[in-house]
Amino acid sequence: MTKQLCLGGFMRPICLHTAWWRHPEAPADANFNWPVIKSLAQKLERACFDAIFTADHLALMPMPPEALKRSATVTSFDPLMMLSAIAACTDRIGLIATGSTSYEDPYLLARRFASLDHLSNGRAGWNIVTTVNPEAALNFGLETALRHAQRYERADEFFEVVTKLWDGWSDNALKMDKESGVFSDIERIRPINHKGKYFSVKGPLNIARPVQGWPVVALAGASEGARQMAAKSADLVFGNARSIETGRSFYQDMKSRAVAFGRNPDHIKILPANQVYVGHTRAEAIAKKRSMDDLVHVESNIPNLSIRLGVDCSKFDPDKLLPELPVTEQGQGNQREWVALARREKLTVRELAKRAAESGTGEMVGTPSEIADQMEEWLMTGACDGFIIVFHTVPDGYDDFVTMVVPELQRRGLMRTEYTGNTLRENIGLPRPNSPLDN
Amino acid sequence: MTKQLCLGGFMRPICLHTAWWRHPEAPADANFNWPVIKSLAQKLERACFDAIFTADHLALMPMPPEALKRSATVTSFDPLMMLSAIAACTDRIGLIATGSTSYEDPYLLARRFASLDHLSNGRAGWNIVTTVNPEAALNFGLETALRHAQRYERADEFFEVVTKLWDGWSDNALKMDKESGVFSDIERIRPINHKGKYFSVKGPLNIARPVQGWPVVALAGASEGARQMAAKSADLVFGNARSIETGRSFYQDMKSRAVAFGRNPDHIKILPANQVYVGHTRAEAIAKKRSMDDLVHVESNIPNLSIRLGVDCSKFDPDKLLPELPVTEQGQGNQREWVALARREKLTVRELAKRAAESGTGEMVGTPSEIADQMEEWLMTGACDGFIIVFHTVPDGYDDFVTMVVPELQRRGLMRTEYTGNTLRENIGLPRPNSPLDN
Repeated sequence: MTKQLCLGGFMRPICLHTAWWRHPEAPADANFNWPVIKSLAQKLERACFDAIFTADHLALMPMPPEALKRSATVTSFDPLMMLSAIAACTDRIGLIATGSTSYEDPYLLARRFASLDHLSNGRAGWNIVTTVNPEAALNFGLETALRHAQRYERADEFFEVVTKLWDGWSDNALKMDKESGVFSDIERIRPINHKGKYFSVKGPLNIARPVQGWPVVALAGASEGARQMAAKSADLVFGNARSIETGRSFYQDMKSRAVAFGRNPDHIKILPANQVYVGHTRAEAIAKKRSMDDLVHVESNIPNLSIRLGVDCSKFDPDKLLPELPVTEQGQGNQREWVALARREKLTVRELAKRAAESGTGEMVGTPSEIADQMEEWLMTGACDGFIIVFHTVPDGYDDFVTMVVPELQRRGLMRTEYTGNTLRENIGLPRPNSPLDN
Repeated sequence: MTKQLCLGGFMRPICLHTAWWRHPEAPADANFNWPVIKSLAQKLERACFDAIFTADHLALMPMPPEALKRSATVTSFDPLMMLSAIAACTDRIGLIATGSTSYEDPYLLARRFASLDHLSNGRAGWNIVTTVNPEAALNFGLETALRHAQRYERADEFFEVVTKLWDGWSDNALKMDKESGVFSDIERIRPINHKGKYFSVKGPLNIARPVQGWPVVALAGASEGARQMAAKSADLVFGNARSIETGRSFYQDMKSRAVAFGRNPDHIKILPANQVYVGHTRAEAIAKKRSMDDLVHVESNIPNLSIRLGVDCSKFDPDKLLPELPVTEQGQGNQREWVALARREKLTVRELAKRAAESGTGEMVGTPSEIADQMEEWLMTGACDGFIIVFHTVPDGYDDFVTMVVPELQRRGLMRTEYTGNTLRENIGLPRPNSPLDN
């Protein structure tokens, strides 16, 4: 069988293009309009996407008022709540929610992901993040965000607690024997008695082991800490390569690191984000991109770049090349990718900022055949195992991809035409973790 | 118009009778079987129930192994996740989730309830609880549960933070003006800058003001602390009266307290829990109850009583009358109701324990007409504004009530035959809170 693309659809926020909501056909409230979200999720399922992906922020984005007032990110659903609702009106598509190890509680979060996995019959995924937004810290009783090393130390322990809780139940703990009246074999439901630096959790969880054993584990971020944690533990890695060269370099690095942890490199899938503009002709695709980009207000550019780089860019001369940047606590890997882009194309701060507002991710622009050619090259030359598709507007971005790109990928055998497994793990080709209680 | 009953259906756990899952027709996994839960929720909606109610525990129930292994409570969904899924496949019924002020985080919980309210188009409710189970404390880094006074002090501040966060958004904050590119009026989205004893939360929330302003606020518990908090802030109060006399006394007390807080007594609804056995004849109803009660294993009785009373009853002589009880940190109001029952009917510990396992709540047994007579008397003589109906098994308990009792109540005009409002507040007849930003 031909190697196939693993495809996720980025649905929270509903689009990443800063001006998506100004498109004439877009329902401007799509980020928290449930009927719209439901119909888009069902559309991605009909197109056989592997999963829906939802990001999260635990505060308003840190932007000056002139930019914040133009941003559709001010309102959206809690990702877990949104995916529970989607679970109820889809059957096969995976459901990946971002959950912060910096501010959530491990017992509650383990139970919510187990709930999503049971509600969806095995389609849940957890995108593990550490939260760097300084505004978020202020919503959780802290003066500043945890430093990078602490964030990852806490994340490691958080992940350990959550997986121990899931593993605290045997797959065979429930007897439900009406005759004897014995509901469960409580020898197969064990406390975890975790006592660590950040958490003290007795357990067990009061929900049965997830259908998938563990929900699929995803990680984004490209800092050293994130890469090591992903190489050790993640099933999916969301990347942000903006060229096939940086894509290949990230891909090779992550697969090697996974092998160094004794893992099968096929069991860690590398999925760069990709905003696709497709048209019946190349000119039409370019025109679509231009008309979207023209809707971005200039006030949004520099604040967007500040968020991508993790430094305040308003103090830089907008008409000079990007200066050397200080090392910051925030998104080190993301910063690296943007700096590489600026150097490669010799962009001024103003030009780079415009790119930042137009797309937070890599892009492909062209006919269905041209898009498929590029995706095929990325897949076949070791730059990715698939993509997280980012849509530029609603509903056009979704419709364009589903009606033009998906059929071309399917024709080439690069994408499935029907779901082959029942669970997200089965569809992506990932093993199911066993509980030590079942070994 | 005749005064009408406000009816909630208790769906988590799916039933409260200890042996519900042993009924020959019951799907024993109904507590975490999504297709079963979905069909029951839709059934209650077709019967025009006001709301679905979900309780919660943040640990396994504290029981000795012989009782725990017989309990179906070991596995169920997180209530918010379950109600999000139900929101997606119902249109009118209210969705009330228990959320603990002892172990949840106010920013995250405010956002999840706002999400549920938007997802359901104004049907969310929050049942505020403080968590007393000592096993739960151990899952959240504490050695013991907070003491009663501290729990309610924290609950008060938690509620203040959550409602300030909801009020931090004006109803008119979103402009979504495609022409000018202005998405929101950020003057109408305000930080709350809360700094208190337990929480420090800047805000604002990153989701728009709930459809209902605030989701409906519910409170259970009958301790002094719970009564005062409910009288001040709750729209719905779940009671546990086991006789019409204690029902009336609780009803009068709560209405008077609400008036003392300057509230309209019609805006605080008193809903005792009620497990109903109905048959075409009285004998049939009694036989149903007996056959359910006969399924309770004797090992479950004393542990159930211990949970109801908040004291270890295994040390009491089972064949003597219930001794004087020490004052405990747990469920003081609940304890009072059970002690009253024991004294009233002169029950031994063994007899009282059997009752505790059979039903945690008040009960009605009879023909549809007899049940309706009793409910009418409670409603018309100031003992309640409605009931939280507790079902004794699945699907029979649900089917019996919906096919036999509901039509009789509707015939008498004691229950609506179609939903009259769009939101839960509208259906129950509650005012919508304004944000100070809109005054």
